[in-house]
Amino acid sequence: MLVGRQKRAGHLGLARSNRVRTAADVAHRQRLGAGNVARMHTGFHPFTNAVENDCLFAYESRCKAAFDKIEPVLREIAQFQHDSNFIIKAQELARLLLNLELPEHLLENTWIAPLEMGKLYAWCVFETFRLFADEFYSDKPLAQESDADFQHFIESCGFHTVDFSPCADGRLAHTISYVLRLPYKGVRRKSYAGAMFDVEDSLQKWVEVEHRRLSESLPNSASEPTRYLKAAVYHYSSSLPGQEGCAAHGSDAAKAAEGAMSRLLAFQQGVQNSFCCGASIDLMLIGIDTDNDAIRIHCPDASGNPDGENYIDAQAVYDATRHANPADSERIISELIEQKSSAASREDNRGLVKFMARLLFNNISQIDYVRNNFNGCYSDIGHQERFIGMGVGFEEVQLRNLTYFAYLKTVEQNATDVDVGIKIFTGLNIKRGLPAPVVIRYDYHGNVPGARERAVAKVHCLQQAMAARFPEQTQQGLIHTMLVVRDCSADNSIEVVGGSTQPGVTGGGH
Amino acid sequence: MLVGRQKRAGHLGLARSNRVRTAADVAHRQRLGAGNVARMHTGFHPFTNAVENDCLFAYESRCKAAFDKIEPVLREIAQFQHDSNFIIKAQELARLLLNLELPEHLLENTWIAPLEMGKLYAWCVFETFRLFADEFYSDKPLAQESDADFQHFIESCGFHTVDFSPCADGRLAHTISYVLRLPYKGVRRKSYAGAMFDVEDSLQKWVEVEHRRLSESLPNSASEPTRYLKAAVYHYSSSLPGQEGCAAHGSDAAKAAEGAMSRLLAFQQGVQNSFCCGASIDLMLIGIDTDNDAIRIHCPDASGNPDGENYIDAQAVYDATRHANPADSERIISELIEQKSSAASREDNRGLVKFMARLLFNNISQIDYVRNNFNGCYSDIGHQERFIGMGVGFEEVQLRNLTYFAYLKTVEQNATDVDVGIKIFTGLNIKRGLPAPVVIRYDYHGNVPGARERAVAKVHCLQQAMAARFPEQTQQGLIHTMLVVRDCSADNSIEVVGGSTQPGVTGGGH
Repeated sequence: MLVGRQKRAGHLGLARSNRVRTAADVAHRQRLGAGNVARMHTGFHPFTNAVENDCLFAYESRCKAAFDKIEPVLREIAQFQHDSNFIIKAQELARLLLNLELPEHLLENTWIAPLEMGKLYAWCVFETFRLFADEFYSDKPLAQESDADFQHFIESCGFHTVDFSPCADGRLAHTISYVLRLPYKGVRRKSYAGAMFDVEDSLQKWVEVEHRRLSESLPNSASEPTRYLKAAVYHYSSSLPGQEGCAAHGSDAAKAAEGAMSRLLAFQQGVQNSFCCGASIDLMLIGIDTDNDAIRIHCPDASGNPDGENYIDAQAVYDATRHANPADSERIISELIEQKSSAASREDNRGLVKFMARLLFNNISQIDYVRNNFNGCYSDIGHQERFIGMGVGFEEVQLRNLTYFAYLKTVEQNATDVDVGIKIFTGLNIKRGLPAPVVIRYDYHGNVPGARERAVAKVHCLQQAMAARFPEQTQQGLIHTMLVVRDCSADNSIEVVGGSTQPGVTGGGH
Repeated sequence: MLVGRQKRAGHLGLARSNRVRTAADVAHRQRLGAGNVARMHTGFHPFTNAVENDCLFAYESRCKAAFDKIEPVLREIAQFQHDSNFIIKAQELARLLLNLELPEHLLENTWIAPLEMGKLYAWCVFETFRLFADEFYSDKPLAQESDADFQHFIESCGFHTVDFSPCADGRLAHTISYVLRLPYKGVRRKSYAGAMFDVEDSLQKWVEVEHRRLSESLPNSASEPTRYLKAAVYHYSSSLPGQEGCAAHGSDAAKAAEGAMSRLLAFQQGVQNSFCCGASIDLMLIGIDTDNDAIRIHCPDASGNPDGENYIDAQAVYDATRHANPADSERIISELIEQKSSAASREDNRGLVKFMARLLFNNISQIDYVRNNFNGCYSDIGHQERFIGMGVGFEEVQLRNLTYFAYLKTVEQNATDVDVGIKIFTGLNIKRGLPAPVVIRYDYHGNVPGARERAVAKVHCLQQAMAARFPEQTQQGLIHTMLVVRDCSADNSIEVVGGSTQPGVTGGGH
């Protein structure tokens, strides 16, 4: 996934002798020949890609530090707000420590009124996010395995599309790029509180995907016997299971798994009942321990669907393969899966098991990532998001605990997702007098006339709906918003089109 | 369309000698042989289907009378609310005059508190609507031209789907079944204030339709060179152009046409830019004079799209064909269209012109309908809707001025459509102390698991959003709601799942 992957130590990809080798398989074999870099790092699992881990950690640390410096720097700036050369000193500090030019309209008039610290704080968070997004789209810090390679790989597993719905919880925001080490562009990601994804929205997406296959043979021809894979990702906390699990399911891992599973089955049956010709989809259910990012993947049952009770734990795979040869990884992990589930060894589950094996293999790197950089358990095992993201988009957010992200088109129909976000930020910020910074976003297809204007209208509409839902916090400046749109047909960065910290806007209002 | 159509007098359908005759064409030729019933009604246009007109008028009169009796009957009931045998007398009157059994919970306690008349009124409107819907789905009073016949006809015009977006104005609610005399099941209808339809929603629908053609060859195979026809229907008032036109466009017919046209072009370009292989759609722009239901259809310009400036008026067609032979109707009307537009005679516009000719032909019956039953101009040239319908569904509403209908999934993103409705009912009801009855509706596909539960949740959510948008009117009982869902995959009637007039609900609240 990373540029560093070119030097990837071990990687799933050695095709079993009885399987067809895809182009991606061959590429992976070549990478294996580059030698096992991980072995040079004492204590690492032989499957771990230590170089990739270093790159990912550098990126995560740098980005988060940019956000985390804001509060201490503003605390310092607050101290001399009554000095005669306040603006000059404040700008110097901000430039030096935050790499930001503060907005003059928020620095003026301190001789007669106190600095609007909450607003300035929100402005800094928004501006830091804007710079972060710009870098993401211009420098591509999470450079990916080529789209074609990944597409070849999933097709070799029998899928043409993989669609993940993790929980909206910020501790899962890095699920794709870090925990599962998948290329973010190759995976659809739509987050919902409790992973309770919208079945009708998914059905619509399924139709879009199948239409494209039928009409344009993209990503592959509809005559290929591949399927749409829908995965739901729930979470739990092994150290504080009753407190730091999923709020939407009362911090109960079994209920979280059940809830996600019920949506998966509804989606599958919806496809089967609504379309002809044996249309169906494959399902996957994954749990993440948010303490250490170890995953569990539910094994297929007799019907091929995830078994709610029976899963394979990446930590167990980690331990069982502690001294294995990376070249044998796929075979060894597949065997471990088959030991857990007799159905896994069936011919028609072979592709699914191959994909599961890849995810478990990839997750071993992440287990070492947390082990090496955080002593095996995050210090922020609870919420530590820096801002709320709501709307449609946010491809650039691939970092843990950076964003509480709710995928939605209206507050009205997704109030739960928004309420959970504000509840989290009441604990994190509002109770300390700091506002909850909310980035309201709508990605649009620039090739549809008027789409940008409608996206702009939509973010304004969402802003109004937020103000109507949280009138007190908005009035008191305890919720601030930045309105952002992005043409997702082009490869541009985001465009800021409004918000409560802009010149001429008073309070947190709109 | 009606059962009466079997005796249809004159009908478009005589294929020109150089055209392929479809099954529908042949069926229409056979009907022509039944003789021209219209000629027997003095003063009717020879193309008019007088039998159908009679059936339609009987249905319209009967349905509307059921709603219109409510207020006078309740006025009478109000007079003896303090009598000792009040409930018995009220029920007798209601049974006799309204065919309703009034709900006991709204009749009790009149000795100590005045009758909640507004609530009782809303309840009666809702119950009348429920009975109206039940009749619609069980008795099928608007029995249709067979689906297959109509599908054959539109395919002979080069279309596989026709999708109409009229204005949400109640004076256009009968557009499909009356004004244009098309079978309501054969036409997609989604209403928006000002006919300003949602481009992204239409794109989604287009993908669904094309997917079904590609995967199931329904309604026809994707290899057939037919297209999706999108029509927008705006309106104006010839007698009071500055007052009784479209409120969403400041009662300006030119602006209404322009607004609708801009959405049509955006949709067309959206399809062209988003999909490959020469994907496109055909467009049609229609205006309705709400005084007398005469339509104008904009002629194709050089590109084949509707010309904003150049249209053909059904009244002019009516006059020009006053003495024509119905058997020649298609040829004569096509020639009139070609006189208005040189582009209309082009080979690639032939199907479009054929469809236009059919609409103009059908509209002649409606012109006579208004002439015969309303002296050529409705007495209710302004708003006279009986209730507001909002949400997804309302296939059964095919009557003029019965319902202000807003197609929407949330109040948040379609606030304009809702606001216009409440504004209309402020004039009609609220200023007289009568509540605005609002039917909140969500049709669902029963073959998708959980779809009914989600539809029920959605109507409750819409009810809350209405209460939040109109808190005073809700509090004062000046907006009442009935919550309704329907499984549109089955052929059942509606199901009432809640509302403000149900037992145990106080005020207009929820």
